[in-house]
Amino acid sequence: MAKAPKNAISPTREADYPEWYQQVIKAADLAEVSPVRGCMVIKPWGWGIWENMQKVLDGMFKDTGHENAYFPLFIPMSFLEKEAEHVEGFAKECAVVTHHRLEPGPDGGLVPAGKLDEPLIVRPTSETIIGAMYAKWVQSYRDLPILINQWANVVRWELRTRMFLRTAEFLWQEGHTAHATKEEALFETRQMLDVYADFAENYMAMPVIKGEKPSWERFPGADMTVSIEAMMQDRKALQAGTSHFLGQNFSKAQEIKFQSAEGTEEFAWTTSWGVSTRLVGGLIMTHSDDDGLVVPPRLAPKHVVILPIYRSDEEKAAVLAFCDDLEAKLKAQSYDGAPVRVIMDDRDLRGGEKTWYHIKRGVPIRVEVGPRDVASGSVFVGRRDQTPKDKQGIPVDQFVSEVAATLTEIQNGLFEKAKKLREDNSRKIDSLEELKKWFTPKSDDKPEIHGGFAHVHCADVKEVEEELKKLKLTARCIPVDGDEEPGKCLFTGQEVSRRMVIAKAY
Amino acid sequence: MAKAPKNAISPTREADYPEWYQQVIKAADLAEVSPVRGCMVIKPWGWGIWENMQKVLDGMFKDTGHENAYFPLFIPMSFLEKEAEHVEGFAKECAVVTHHRLEPGPDGGLVPAGKLDEPLIVRPTSETIIGAMYAKWVQSYRDLPILINQWANVVRWELRTRMFLRTAEFLWQEGHTAHATKEEALFETRQMLDVYADFAENYMAMPVIKGEKPSWERFPGADMTVSIEAMMQDRKALQAGTSHFLGQNFSKAQEIKFQSAEGTEEFAWTTSWGVSTRLVGGLIMTHSDDDGLVVPPRLAPKHVVILPIYRSDEEKAAVLAFCDDLEAKLKAQSYDGAPVRVIMDDRDLRGGEKTWYHIKRGVPIRVEVGPRDVASGSVFVGRRDQTPKDKQGIPVDQFVSEVAATLTEIQNGLFEKAKKLREDNSRKIDSLEELKKWFTPKSDDKPEIHGGFAHVHCADVKEVEEELKKLKLTARCIPVDGDEEPGKCLFTGQEVSRRMVIAKAY
Repeated sequence: MAKAPKNAISPTREADYPEWYQQVIKAADLAEVSPVRGCMVIKPWGWGIWENMQKVLDGMFKDTGHENAYFPLFIPMSFLEKEAEHVEGFAKECAVVTHHRLEPGPDGGLVPAGKLDEPLIVRPTSETIIGAMYAKWVQSYRDLPILINQWANVVRWELRTRMFLRTAEFLWQEGHTAHATKEEALFETRQMLDVYADFAENYMAMPVIKGEKPSWERFPGADMTVSIEAMMQDRKALQAGTSHFLGQNFSKAQEIKFQSAEGTEEFAWTTSWGVSTRLVGGLIMTHSDDDGLVVPPRLAPKHVVILPIYRSDEEKAAVLAFCDDLEAKLKAQSYDGAPVRVIMDDRDLRGGEKTWYHIKRGVPIRVEVGPRDVASGSVFVGRRDQTPKDKQGIPVDQFVSEVAATLTEIQNGLFEKAKKLREDNSRKIDSLEELKKWFTPKSDDKPEIHGGFAHVHCADVKEVEEELKKLKLTARCIPVDGDEEPGKCLFTGQEVSRRMVIAKAY
Repeated sequence: MAKAPKNAISPTREADYPEWYQQVIKAADLAEVSPVRGCMVIKPWGWGIWENMQKVLDGMFKDTGHENAYFPLFIPMSFLEKEAEHVEGFAKECAVVTHHRLEPGPDGGLVPAGKLDEPLIVRPTSETIIGAMYAKWVQSYRDLPILINQWANVVRWELRTRMFLRTAEFLWQEGHTAHATKEEALFETRQMLDVYADFAENYMAMPVIKGEKPSWERFPGADMTVSIEAMMQDRKALQAGTSHFLGQNFSKAQEIKFQSAEGTEEFAWTTSWGVSTRLVGGLIMTHSDDDGLVVPPRLAPKHVVILPIYRSDEEKAAVLAFCDDLEAKLKAQSYDGAPVRVIMDDRDLRGGEKTWYHIKRGVPIRVEVGPRDVASGSVFVGRRDQTPKDKQGIPVDQFVSEVAATLTEIQNGLFEKAKKLREDNSRKIDSLEELKKWFTPKSDDKPEIHGGFAHVHCADVKEVEEELKKLKLTARCIPVDGDEEPGKCLFTGQEVSRRMVIAKAY
């Protein structure tokens, strides 16, 4: 076996967290920068995680009564202009299609030709184009609610991009619903927040705080935005999903009107909600370690990798026969309502190289099988949530019968570990001095490591937004769970009923 | 019950086939024209069919060793220019992004701003951007083959659009593979053609001819294009899927090079293959009738709709209890490897209206349950492949136990019917006079109804392309199955070894 490196990923999290993140993505072969500015290529292993996320979320959306549909990639510029705050929010960073063909230019190359009468915007989000259709579809209260989701790509021309977390093109789902009453729309907004929290905690093993955004952090055009916020291992916050109560703002801008049961004409109440490939970034930063990616079993493209080890043709025959049998037995086991996902890696590589390959990719369970294991009817098992050296010999039948329970244990363990990190790095803060201290880097050479989440009384006013900006801090949300806890705003002295989560953020 | 209309769709297929097609889409609520030129909105019922298509095809791709990945929406203009035939094929109809933000203009509205150094093309297909990545990934023969598929949206600025069949934006999958040898790439090209034919015939119940395109019908930049061709009910051909052997054209343009086992530097051999939302159009035109959509059960979003019928609250309680029980029993049945998909429609609509709603949407089996059925323990069953009047009383247990077999019978029956139509409207033709006669409309007021497919000896030369153009006919393909049958080209007299399928086409 090749000599095991001290750590598979260099630099470590402690040495340089942002660079560690890029290196984990590279080592696990999740994604790559593309030649198109700000756009990434999602490679098969990264796509496999996103595909599993989509499958689970899609089921959750359907279970809550939503259907999928598909709307155009392009939005006429005039549509975007209809809602004032909305266009303000997106005009500064959007891809604009102005021509519809290419022609030979004066110097031999091609030049854009066929100028469009009206420029088209590559959707940064689809409220305006979907709303235009809803205005046609909704006549009577009987046509409501409309509960539709779409899986799509969107483009926001971000200047500073980072794989999965912030890319010019990203993939997401966007739910868009229209309701007859404010109460229904509020229920929907909150219901989808709960769906996202359920997914984050129970599938991604990523604990989240559900809360309401202060006004300055709202989606452009929304009356209320709620979000789930997670703590990454560098104590920074990641907004992982948002759900917006749009009130009647978009329905008024787009004339989504209906005749009520009483015969009056009313504007519909709308919502929108979305999560994106950013979740893959959150998953990476929540669980991975200095040996590479760690994937929670419920979302892992593969649960178990079988690694046959042999030196002669004779050994090979016996080992492979044993491994084939093991693979079949594992696939016959059920985990999370489906067969256990197994791969066998019989590539002609040195054992150590192969083992590290799968450690770096975060496969939850590795099973090594050599001639001696075949003879004794046992396997050598390594778990991704334990150090690479912690391998254990187990009778093969026991391993197979316990595999689902082991995966559940890994899944739960990852959640508990992440939750503990958040709890250890969160505190209530009641003075400005204490707040500044909390966010001071622990030492000069580790500028990333600061306190974590601060739970602070803050008023939802402009002055607080500005003060936080000066401190290079962001308001994450006002948690919706738990009891009220009135107190005075740290900046303005105003009385508020709940604390707000303040953090550095992605 | 409302009086049944003579036909739910007006006009009928015979009266006006193209308009009938639009009306079926409308009546079944599959899709709608959007405010964005040439782009459609795919509504939930239409999306449900596409979703099922995706699921099956995705499984087939994985079973043949492919993985999914995702590449950028945008292609830098210079990438498109690298392969001469390719750019020639796509430059005339592409969406060009030239700016990356919007600014207030002189007259108050917005204008594009932030001009890009290099225009970006919204992908019409992704050979060039994917090839650029493969060039980075492939160094040695050990890195081959690369077997990747992506599910994506693409844009081709078509002037004349038609829902599903030809739209500016459409959804598709595009497989892109790279191989060390010509033989492997040819095998892949042909393998994916077989996958597409298997899907078309066994899931869509749409018989297809597998064949090779003559040179002038090839994909821009390909050495060989093979396709599946289906006959619609108006006797016209629909190209339903294509698989391209790209030789070394793209690998040379993009430098996808590798070191062989012998140490020499070689260019990779590449393929690409795709099917799109056009398949939904093919499905509609193959099976639907003058009462609306007919969906083959294997792709139907729902297999069975239960329609409770009652007049009083007392009847309602008994009927709904019976229906709930029936729904549970049906869902416990397995069809095509998964539970039977059932909906109950208890909306407050007149019985006839509700029944026709589901007929028009093509649900394979309708079950009506009234108080008398509850008393006798039977149900009233209508099949979408029979006329609306052909309803049958069946004991409920028998219906449930036979439901999977009935769905299979419907699926097979649709295939046989479509196959018979094609056979009845195909013939070998050996003279130019006969060919012209074959494609002459049967009567002046039905310009669409002509002979169908003509199997003709044609040489793969420019002259034939031009002569067919004059006759307003198209060369579909040279079928690859069956024995050779040498003969003289109808237009040039050259000896060719196989007949070519000639047809009017979509």
